[in-house]
Amino acid sequence: MTLGRVVGNVVSTQKNEKLEGAKLLLVQPLDLSLQARGAPVMAVDGVDAGIGDLILLIQDGRSAQLVLGKGAAAVDAAVIGVVDAVEMA
Amino acid sequence: MTLGRVVGNVVSTQKNEKLEGAKLLLVQPLDLSLQARGAPVMAVDGVDAGIGDLILLIQDGRSAQLVLGKGAAAVDAAVIGVVDAVEMA
Amino acid sequence: MTLGRVVGNVVSTQKNEKLEGAKLLLVQPLDLSLQARGAPVMAVDGVDAGIGDLILLIQDGRSAQLVLGKGAAAVDAAVIGVVDAVEMA
Amino acid sequence: MTLGRVVGNVVSTQKNEKLEGAKLLLVQPLDLSLQARGAPVMAVDGVDAGIGDLILLIQDGRSAQLVLGKGAAAVDAAVIGVVDAVEMA
Amino acid sequence: MTLGRVVGNVVSTQKNEKLEGAKLLLVQPLDLSLQARGAPVMAVDGVDAGIGDLILLIQDGRSAQLVLGKGAAAVDAAVIGVVDAVEMA
Repeated sequence: MTLGRVVGNVVSTQKNEKLEGAKLLLVQPLDLSLQARGAPVMAVDGVDAGIGDLILLIQDGRSAQLVLGKGAAAVDAAVIGVVDAVEMA
Repeated sequence: MTLGRVVGNVVSTQKNEKLEGAKLLLVQPLDLSLQARGAPVMAVDGVDAGIGDLILLIQDGRSAQLVLGKGAAAVDAAVIGVVDAVEMA
Repeated sequence: MTLGRVVGNVVSTQKNEKLEGAKLLLVQPLDLSLQARGAPVMAVDGVDAGIGDLILLIQDGRSAQLVLGKGAAAVDAAVIGVVDAVEMA
Repeated sequence: MTLGRVVGNVVSTQKNEKLEGAKLLLVQPLDLSLQARGAPVMAVDGVDAGIGDLILLIQDGRSAQLVLGKGAAAVDAAVIGVVDAVEMA
Repeated sequence: MTLGRVVGNVVSTQKNEKLEGAKLLLVQPLDLSLQARGAPVMAVDGVDAGIGDLILLIQDGRSAQLVLGKGAAAVDAAVIGVVDAVEMA
């Protein structure tokens, strides 16, 4: 999983039926200093996250499919948690 | 998921039976400023996209298989939506 | 699998139900000289590892799901072993 | 999927039983100008491709397993089509 | 699949039960000139390979799980064949 921040959302009307009902977020991956790292990705929302939230991002098709809580979905990334804290040793 | 634009298509007559009936698009991944990012990829069309469309690209075998709406297909990328807008916070 | 060291943990209260019960570790991937290589990743703990432990990290959704020993989990990385030694020929 | 060219083949006598019967090709990934891009990969042949053929390469375990048309195979890449043309808009 | 050489092995006593019985090898990926390319990875042995062997490496969770010949294993890479020859056209 990667640390990220929700920075927007994606609107798509014409989409594959396997994507119906999915809320799509735009996520900026971050390093541990909360600086941007790499390009933003689109991810399905599995935790009702909002703009500005610090989140946990997964990037794997089979696991991302699980977060919608219904049949298989054609997605490859998902937001699965809002991060309260990252505790370093 | 990644933002991309459909820039062409791929013609293949001699192909594996697990690829029969799939329409193959050539997609250029884009950044949020709609500039090209990385090399073009071939992806199966899951949304009846056309040349020039701004689209959502998934890159995962299991999820890409779902978009054809029939049995398993030997693909690793798919176009799953046409993007109306990316809304930044 | 990749060599890594547990350097912290992640606290998330608001999370997807498919992540319930998972202990999330912060892992720094290492090279064979035990120097940091690449960015830290978050991984589910499948071996009761502790801070400072030298560990084996897997990065694959389907395999990471297995380590929790129950139904499918929405994860894409896991700590699966504590490394005693890496023996070079 | 990625564009590539078949540049050789791989001979392996001592192999895992989940790889029996698979013909292994050496494939050089190409860009759209047909120039080499990145390192060559080994891929199972799902389309009876020959040396010199311009082909479609998939790199995903679950999808590559499908091309052999029998039970699960321990592979992570496959040649799934011979490319007749890439049509740019 | 990628070409590699077995350069060592990994000892882990405290490990996830889904990794029991797996022999873990340290593999250095190689290019076609047999020069090291990238960082070494840990992989489960699916072919009884020995130190110094030139081998075929797969990096995919679902496929790597198959090589142990029993239930699901929490692995993401495997050695699946000993390479006799790579024949270039």
